[in-house]
Amino acid sequence: MSPKVTGKQDTKTLLLQVGIELMMEKGYTNTGIQEVLNILNVPKGSFYHYFDSKESYAVEIIHYFDRGYTANLLHVLKNPEQGPLERLNSYCEQNKSMLASQQCRKGCLIGNLGQEMSDQSEVLRTELSSVMDKWRAIIADCIEEGQNTGEIKSTRSAMELAELFSSGWSGAVLRAKTLKSTAPLDTFMELMIKDVLKAC
Amino acid sequence: MSPKVTGKQDTKTLLLQVGIELMMEKGYTNTGIQEVLNILNVPKGSFYHYFDSKESYAVEIIHYFDRGYTANLLHVLKNPEQGPLERLNSYCEQNKSMLASQQCRKGCLIGNLGQEMSDQSEVLRTELSSVMDKWRAIIADCIEEGQNTGEIKSTRSAMELAELFSSGWSGAVLRAKTLKSTAPLDTFMELMIKDVLKAC
Repeated sequence: MSPKVTGKQDTKTLLLQVGIELMMEKGYTNTGIQEVLNILNVPKGSFYHYFDSKESYAVEIIHYFDRGYTANLLHVLKNPEQGPLERLNSYCEQNKSMLASQQCRKGCLIGNLGQEMSDQSEVLRTELSSVMDKWRAIIADCIEEGQNTGEIKSTRSAMELAELFSSGWSGAVLRAKTLKSTAPLDTFMELMIKDVLKAC
Repeated sequence: MSPKVTGKQDTKTLLLQVGIELMMEKGYTNTGIQEVLNILNVPKGSFYHYFDSKESYAVEIIHYFDRGYTANLLHVLKNPEQGPLERLNSYCEQNKSMLASQQCRKGCLIGNLGQEMSDQSEVLRTELSSVMDKWRAIIADCIEEGQNTGEIKSTRSAMELAELFSSGWSGAVLRAKTLKSTAPLDTFMELMIKDVLKAC
């Protein structure tokens, strides 16, 4: 990482981007503000100009990360060139490639912080929970579209299937991180897409 | 927590038990050795008599936790008074009750440490990975038994189904922790047991 600070807005964005990288790999507690400042070579006063505390920094990191993630999620899950089931598979493939390119490190910022901080900070828990809700709703929309076209089973509600899909995926990512192998992601995709979702 | 230290062996066991409680809720990084010593009112020298470092303490905590967890897992998943599918449901119900009694705090020590420490400590990652493998094999045995009796679908291998079951459950626990609600666990049980595993 060798970002250049060229202006006020840039400084805040860079602080958020470096925060995402560090918190994704090391978690909230292990990420020190001083470490962020050292990487960017900006003074501590600059940090507190933008953020009141480490917790409010993390809240803005969650929002920043969510904006990018949601934009991509919508792009993939509303792609008119693929059917709903193929889109869900593309979403998994994309995330799997990302994880593989990082040697199965990091995983998902929202899942990681959820695991680490849900019992530690009610402020962060609420933010993380609402981001998870939003992503599930987008996945449920895609599943519902597949149910309407008959491609996806309709024996369960789209929201229930989205809950199983999302929880299952985040559990598979955790397992992949711990094994340092993408095999659990392949198993998830194979079974979830072809068996659980696909209409007989 | 108000444990009494009554002997050498007791001290080590109490250090492990208090460590489990703290690491389960706060994680590895947020758990301080001094905090453990304060709770038990034992001197630092006593800690280093039993453990070389915080990391080796965590390794022994993982082993200690695993022994209790595995004994219970075998008890539930080999219960001759229930069929394999009912046993898997009992396992989920038991874990759900535990999480509910803790107001959806803590979750599973192995999942929590896996999320937090897989990128931070190769020693801990290896231990956690091998514990996860062992639990999956026990779950796969139960699923295989159900496949042999025709109660569980045989279109996939018992190990693949165990992988989906275990990852899905740990993802649902993470979601329950973040929502502070057991609803995601109910959804998981309903869909996984009745739709994914149960033979048509």
